[in-house]
Amino acid sequence: MATERVLATYLIETPHPLQEAAEVLAGEQSSGTFVSVPGETDELRERFRARLESLQELEPVAEPSLPGVKVPEGVAEYRRARIEVSFSLENMGVNLPTLVATVAGNLFELREFSGLKLLDIELPQDFATRYPGPQFGIAGTRQLAGVEARPLIGTIVKPSVGLSPAQTAELAGELAGAGIDFIKDDELMADPPHSPLKERVEAVMKVLNKHADKTGKKVMYAFNISDSLQAMYRHHDIVQAASGTCVMVSLNSVGLAGVEALRGRASLPIHGHRNGWGMLNRHPALGIEFTAYQKLWRLAGVDHLHVNGLQNKFSESDESVVRSIKACLEPFLGGYHLLPVLSSGQWGGQAPEPYQLTKTVDLMYLAGGGIMAHPGGPAAGCAAIRQAWEAAVKGVELVDYAREHEELRLSIDKFRG
Amino acid sequence: MATERVLATYLIETPHPLQEAAEVLAGEQSSGTFVSVPGETDELRERFRARLESLQELEPVAEPSLPGVKVPEGVAEYRRARIEVSFSLENMGVNLPTLVATVAGNLFELREFSGLKLLDIELPQDFATRYPGPQFGIAGTRQLAGVEARPLIGTIVKPSVGLSPAQTAELAGELAGAGIDFIKDDELMADPPHSPLKERVEAVMKVLNKHADKTGKKVMYAFNISDSLQAMYRHHDIVQAASGTCVMVSLNSVGLAGVEALRGRASLPIHGHRNGWGMLNRHPALGIEFTAYQKLWRLAGVDHLHVNGLQNKFSESDESVVRSIKACLEPFLGGYHLLPVLSSGQWGGQAPEPYQLTKTVDLMYLAGGGIMAHPGGPAAGCAAIRQAWEAAVKGVELVDYAREHEELRLSIDKFRG
Repeated sequence: MATERVLATYLIETPHPLQEAAEVLAGEQSSGTFVSVPGETDELRERFRARLESLQELEPVAEPSLPGVKVPEGVAEYRRARIEVSFSLENMGVNLPTLVATVAGNLFELREFSGLKLLDIELPQDFATRYPGPQFGIAGTRQLAGVEARPLIGTIVKPSVGLSPAQTAELAGELAGAGIDFIKDDELMADPPHSPLKERVEAVMKVLNKHADKTGKKVMYAFNISDSLQAMYRHHDIVQAASGTCVMVSLNSVGLAGVEALRGRASLPIHGHRNGWGMLNRHPALGIEFTAYQKLWRLAGVDHLHVNGLQNKFSESDESVVRSIKACLEPFLGGYHLLPVLSSGQWGGQAPEPYQLTKTVDLMYLAGGGIMAHPGGPAAGCAAIRQAWEAAVKGVELVDYAREHEELRLSIDKFRG
Repeated sequence: MATERVLATYLIETPHPLQEAAEVLAGEQSSGTFVSVPGETDELRERFRARLESLQELEPVAEPSLPGVKVPEGVAEYRRARIEVSFSLENMGVNLPTLVATVAGNLFELREFSGLKLLDIELPQDFATRYPGPQFGIAGTRQLAGVEARPLIGTIVKPSVGLSPAQTAELAGELAGAGIDFIKDDELMADPPHSPLKERVEAVMKVLNKHADKTGKKVMYAFNISDSLQAMYRHHDIVQAASGTCVMVSLNSVGLAGVEALRGRASLPIHGHRNGWGMLNRHPALGIEFTAYQKLWRLAGVDHLHVNGLQNKFSESDESVVRSIKACLEPFLGGYHLLPVLSSGQWGGQAPEPYQLTKTVDLMYLAGGGIMAHPGGPAAGCAAIRQAWEAAVKGVELVDYAREHEELRLSIDKFRG
């Protein structure tokens, strides 16, 4: 493939001949319209049209995955394939929104398809020149949080809503005392009347700064600044002025241009929350795979990205979560280091499996109830999770390790279903 | 419902008792976690929790619409309901990204559901105080374009990619001469190497300004400025400086914060392109309905919004398109006037039906091939569409009206399938 082309991989499902349907997609997303128009010369078409680069047929299905498909007479099955389509960079320029409009735009509505999912994208190096990407990534985050050679262990402020700044600060102090590395706001609140961001930042950082002065350990707190752009700038500055070390953003509802603008102005890591992700991915034959999705956010400059957790409380399979962790850790355009964030129903029991499969401790491991509801209290909850990761790295069974690690034993008794 | 609550309507599908599943959704999106944690008092919970306001059972289905669902033993069907859930405004504050994180966030991943779609939202008036909404809307757009009492008739520059600024300007001049009201760039290109935005704006506006000086009619051209935020600002200013009257943005890939920031700085109407919409909506039991979606963009300040067209080349049904047109024209928070944009495979034949169903001419009607590939040329193509709308408003059958309107007759002969 020429380096000047964007390559997109799709899963397609169609009642039409596969090659024909794939060409419709390529046409729609480059030079196509419903009738030929004057000015569309062969030369222009050849230079700018998208090209089908490969087509690998998969098992067909008997029923269409999506409605609205145009079915030719006599069709008894829906063919499936994995295809690669390349787009000339000259069409779109080095431009994130136009890239997305090309690889993930109108095509989902084409009635030639009963299923269409964007699986992956590969981009020319030009994107790296324009988009600086994560400012802190894995190494920068570790340095700010003072955590080496093991996952950052974190938690989410719960209840999600309702706590005053003073109550949040009290909880943060308790968690700091328990040895936590990282705390995050919930995605449901950023600057609500009952906990204005400025007051929350000041109350929380007062406690965390004091803790840092005493112990040398600055707990990283991701304040949710998702908002209008000017408010995000202002709130970022408030966090920074209070010696905070992280801001959090709901990626899908702030959007690529907003996150990228924040990155351009920020001097703190951006913790990327992917809420709304189920809408984009839960259907197996519609939407976008995480492998493609996370590349867009790396370009926009996100430092941490949520990937769900193993044995989570949501609908995602463990296999998909592991794939997401690996995707985050894979270098992109020669860098763009991104810290995957595991969360949802975690308590330490989910340490061995991702470690065996990825051999990495470059991740953030968030537990809510797993820490707060530990029978020995939050400090014991944090200790149990550290112990679980020690066991995982050493290749020792959790139950064996728990014999000499009381906190882990209590976690196993309480949380293992 | 108290005015201080956000009301969201969902379609749910679940193998669990409906009430129980609905309560899980409400909990997850307000105070919930997987175990009870200290600090979560009954008082806090009552004040901040989301409430199930209504539940209307629908016909069940035999198979789950989505994978990843937790199925209780012995379940033979998947229950469906339309539910209303209210959220305290105090939880999220008046904040567009936090609103979306609440009504359309993690909930799509809940394994209690085999289907979940956000159908509509109702918001407290506080949102109108914070978000000024469309700056031009229907009346402002009509005034700029000089079109009263009929739809604005427009087209898309085709081929989508490949034309130089000079070629685009030539085409714009030809279309202006043909009597067009509106022209838009394609969503696939904004500022690409072969047609830098600045050069395109200057070339096109030179032609359109000259045409306006001669005829008094300023054709509205929506330049696609989708890009990084600073680039969008700069490009907006270039359009304005050249006496252009519209900018276009790919909404889903720029995002809510970016569009809202542009609105705050813009002095031109924002033409909202919804490419990528299929990903959010094509599955009947996943994602978001247009009724809810368009309200978010009205808050962000979009003036025109694409709704597809009747008998379109995509997968959407005519019934859904008509619902979308109506949704745009329905006042929201007492105003927020939004111009619906019909496009895709339009040539005039799709005038009578939407008119009969909506009795409105407050829309933009875009035809690509329907204008450019008309046997009599683009001027005849524009005339044919105007004639089709005259017939629709008068309640005359198109074929009857075509007897005395040659251009319409030629369109019917060529385009009616």
